[in-house]
Amino acid sequence: MSLRQCLASTSRATATKTRPRLTKSLCLPTLSGISRLCPTGPAPVHVRHASTLPQRSDRFNKLTKSHIGELRKLVGSSSSILSTLDGSATEDDLKTYNNDWMNKYHGKSQVVARPRSTEEVSKIMTWCYENDIAVVPQGGNTGLVGGSNPIHDELIISLSSLNSVRSFDPVSGVLVADAGMVLESADGYLAEKGFIYPLDLGAKGSCQIGGCVATNAGGLRLLRYGSLHGSVLGLEVVLPDGKIWNGLSTLRKDNTGFDLKQLFIGSEGSIGIITGISILCPRRSSSTNVAVFSLSSYEDVQKVFSETKTHLGEILSAFEFFDAASYALVRRMQKHHGEEPKKVFEQEGDFYVLIETSGSNAEHDEEKLTNFVEHLMTSEMVLDGVLAQDTTQAHSLWSLRELITEACTKLGAAFKYDLSTAPGEMYDLVEQMRARLTEKGLLKGDWEGDVGAVVGFGHMGDGNLHLNIVAKQFSEKIQDVIEPFVYEMVKEKGGSISAEHGLGSMKAPYIGYTKSETSIEMMKQIKQMFDPKGLMNPYKYIV
Amino acid sequence: MSLRQCLASTSRATATKTRPRLTKSLCLPTLSGISRLCPTGPAPVHVRHASTLPQRSDRFNKLTKSHIGELRKLVGSSSSILSTLDGSATEDDLKTYNNDWMNKYHGKSQVVARPRSTEEVSKIMTWCYENDIAVVPQGGNTGLVGGSNPIHDELIISLSSLNSVRSFDPVSGVLVADAGMVLESADGYLAEKGFIYPLDLGAKGSCQIGGCVATNAGGLRLLRYGSLHGSVLGLEVVLPDGKIWNGLSTLRKDNTGFDLKQLFIGSEGSIGIITGISILCPRRSSSTNVAVFSLSSYEDVQKVFSETKTHLGEILSAFEFFDAASYALVRRMQKHHGEEPKKVFEQEGDFYVLIETSGSNAEHDEEKLTNFVEHLMTSEMVLDGVLAQDTTQAHSLWSLRELITEACTKLGAAFKYDLSTAPGEMYDLVEQMRARLTEKGLLKGDWEGDVGAVVGFGHMGDGNLHLNIVAKQFSEKIQDVIEPFVYEMVKEKGGSISAEHGLGSMKAPYIGYTKSETSIEMMKQIKQMFDPKGLMNPYKYIV
Repeated sequence: MSLRQCLASTSRATATKTRPRLTKSLCLPTLSGISRLCPTGPAPVHVRHASTLPQRSDRFNKLTKSHIGELRKLVGSSSSILSTLDGSATEDDLKTYNNDWMNKYHGKSQVVARPRSTEEVSKIMTWCYENDIAVVPQGGNTGLVGGSNPIHDELIISLSSLNSVRSFDPVSGVLVADAGMVLESADGYLAEKGFIYPLDLGAKGSCQIGGCVATNAGGLRLLRYGSLHGSVLGLEVVLPDGKIWNGLSTLRKDNTGFDLKQLFIGSEGSIGIITGISILCPRRSSSTNVAVFSLSSYEDVQKVFSETKTHLGEILSAFEFFDAASYALVRRMQKHHGEEPKKVFEQEGDFYVLIETSGSNAEHDEEKLTNFVEHLMTSEMVLDGVLAQDTTQAHSLWSLRELITEACTKLGAAFKYDLSTAPGEMYDLVEQMRARLTEKGLLKGDWEGDVGAVVGFGHMGDGNLHLNIVAKQFSEKIQDVIEPFVYEMVKEKGGSISAEHGLGSMKAPYIGYTKSETSIEMMKQIKQMFDPKGLMNPYKYIV
Repeated sequence: MSLRQCLASTSRATATKTRPRLTKSLCLPTLSGISRLCPTGPAPVHVRHASTLPQRSDRFNKLTKSHIGELRKLVGSSSSILSTLDGSATEDDLKTYNNDWMNKYHGKSQVVARPRSTEEVSKIMTWCYENDIAVVPQGGNTGLVGGSNPIHDELIISLSSLNSVRSFDPVSGVLVADAGMVLESADGYLAEKGFIYPLDLGAKGSCQIGGCVATNAGGLRLLRYGSLHGSVLGLEVVLPDGKIWNGLSTLRKDNTGFDLKQLFIGSEGSIGIITGISILCPRRSSSTNVAVFSLSSYEDVQKVFSETKTHLGEILSAFEFFDAASYALVRRMQKHHGEEPKKVFEQEGDFYVLIETSGSNAEHDEEKLTNFVEHLMTSEMVLDGVLAQDTTQAHSLWSLRELITEACTKLGAAFKYDLSTAPGEMYDLVEQMRARLTEKGLLKGDWEGDVGAVVGFGHMGDGNLHLNIVAKQFSEKIQDVIEPFVYEMVKEKGGSISAEHGLGSMKAPYIGYTKSETSIEMMKQIKQMFDPKGLMNPYKYIV
């Protein structure tokens, strides 16, 4: 029985008590961190044309065996330096650092340093500065735009050995920790104390909190807890000349001069290496609820979003959307896996929204959500809906949204775009892209063209669209139809060509589609001011 | 009957329904915007020693009558330029602009420009740049540190004629407005649409939203809605050379390069003039509750704060505290006004906390708060409590906290400090200051010494203490006992000498107590980069 049927035969008062059971057919596989981080299907090969990748710059020195000897003197442990130059590592050992997890970006570095303290990072950076050695700071290496891999032979400084909690104040909720701490570990530490890390990502099992700050990661909790520009209270950074900047304040308020830490949030390793983080963590909500609805139009998605904010207000923690093509893609993947997808909705729609609430009082939250669900189901805004009854079902509902990324990668070569516009205009981008690919003869019927599917999904609450074009295989012909068209569409709407993934190597050349010449000029001056030798993460970001 | 008595005779279930009535004795005067902005008592005269005020710099040109003629050609309306140089204004006319509202800071400017568009601001600034004219951008001129008044003869650019809403998107909640819009007007505009401006200040009837961004104002809603670094989405700024920087994005997410707008938030007019703002506004809560408790120790204040976050979670919107000395000061002021202060608490305490909730469901919020109040009253954490029954009573309870500022100013010469530390250490600052003033023979018995009272109050939730030393009259002797001792205390605790008021003229020389040499050096470079001629708001902020 769907929710609509259930509610039709239930009074409002009773509905509060008897939450409709989720249909048993909803038994989707849940996500595992590993499968999401290491897709085994055809590798997506959408990278910048080789001709556009910058040449190695002669202003950087090449690392030699004798350099490695000097580097070893700066660190306490022999395992802190891995290099093919002195035989302490093989090329294979360095692949994890040279290549990204999608195997899209391939560096040629011969040296990885894994310092164990901020002081060691500082010593290494001072040495690099004096010797004109280019550097790539690396966190969990889970980025999507080639920002954390070398392009040529840059020295990689991995933060993975800097991974301890430094302090936690249960009155203020302020956590101070090393930058290399894995996000999931930080959140686990906080969970034991009744707090939550104000950021959540698919890659949380691998990504590091320092990398998240360096890339200004957005993720699933942004709607509720806001951006890192608001929640990060302080940073410790090793500057390009090796100096340690101690901006690791734990104060929530401090109006004494420019808020310097803000420059490092989202700086993608271009002006310093973040080694420590101070962040304000909220209390963990004791109650969480998840519901998914099918809808007939994007206009209804917007109406439901607006209604959701009115009715669920302070307990709303996520509002995600995906289109019918995304939903079909996940079901297609399940069939490829030999599974027969189960029926989730009595009435499927052209759109779906996932609503999550988190609050401090389970009874109140359930009442709010049930009343709201009833309001939606008796309106013309939704076609059908399902409400999770327990954590397992909540995970299953989330997987409807989260498996889309995996399906895009496993069913073909995915051209992935992470865009933002005003929420009202967001879906136009998907429709315009479909029209263009159809017009060019690439998108036809049911997987009959070179492009199998164009899907749109994302964080509706943040105006953040993930537009994925799933081709049977990569071709420059398809890419040339997509780009720069996709960026032109976004520019026309005053949107961003990278809502949360950053610029890295992939989008560096396209910044002009989102930022003005005046902005880019100011950014270049900032880069020059902090890193006059241009040693930090070269060839990317602001070039 | 106090809450404790009421609850003692009431079961939990009944308590939920029968909220104890507030004692009728609580009839405190409510605050009026005017009385708060224009205290009529002895003017506080705590300013920097005259000898420390910087001399006029010869690198700036002096304005002449012929300059005024040139300026007039840049603007559309003759009333946009006020000057004593061409007789279009008297010295008296310019006092509002030259002096701050506390009458502490006195500039000697002969020209005020009131441009009516961003383009006019740009033309004026271009002209100033070409003619080496120093400039002070001015919003509502409600600051507390002399940041918005000239020190010498700088040209004042007032934003007051730039005060329209540019757009509002009810789906995303993004407001775009001119910088000169008065905060209360912006909030009023949003209230009609069911939204709220994510910032609230005592000076809201006069302060401008641009000035609030330029000073990174904190205020009463920070605990709930976070800092402006999180909620401001974009800015339009006229740069020191007159160029317009259009960073007026309405996107919630945009990771394409350094987040430049962050540099202007809290820059106090030192690197540009903010002319437009894009800000994310939350839905307005339909239900608000206020309660005040008396407690016996600061340790209990912290315990209650922690418990409040656990029990009230997402509906908590303010947690303010004040000490017995603050409470006594307000009652003293009432007596001076010929009023007999009414009894508020059955049992008074050494400390008081004010808790406010805002949520989307009145019934749920009341139940949460009543359960929590019962929990507190049956614990040993509070002595007594009162709960507002309606808006008028809520205002009365708020006035217990808000009248403190007025009382400090009206009962003597107030030395005002706006400090932040970890919440746990905050009150040490008050106790140490009292000990020092007692030791120096300045603080004795009941207003028997030169100093009448040392009071501590503030935004507990933000770790923000307002420490006020109320002297019978200003003396350099008292000031020298207080300073730099007050800053040394803060430095020792890793705190901030200006939590929310900014640096301006008053605190510029003391930045070193909060910020490291490395930080100050970076700030100077940023200032130099944006404003190589040093025209913007000179002699203040970063000097």
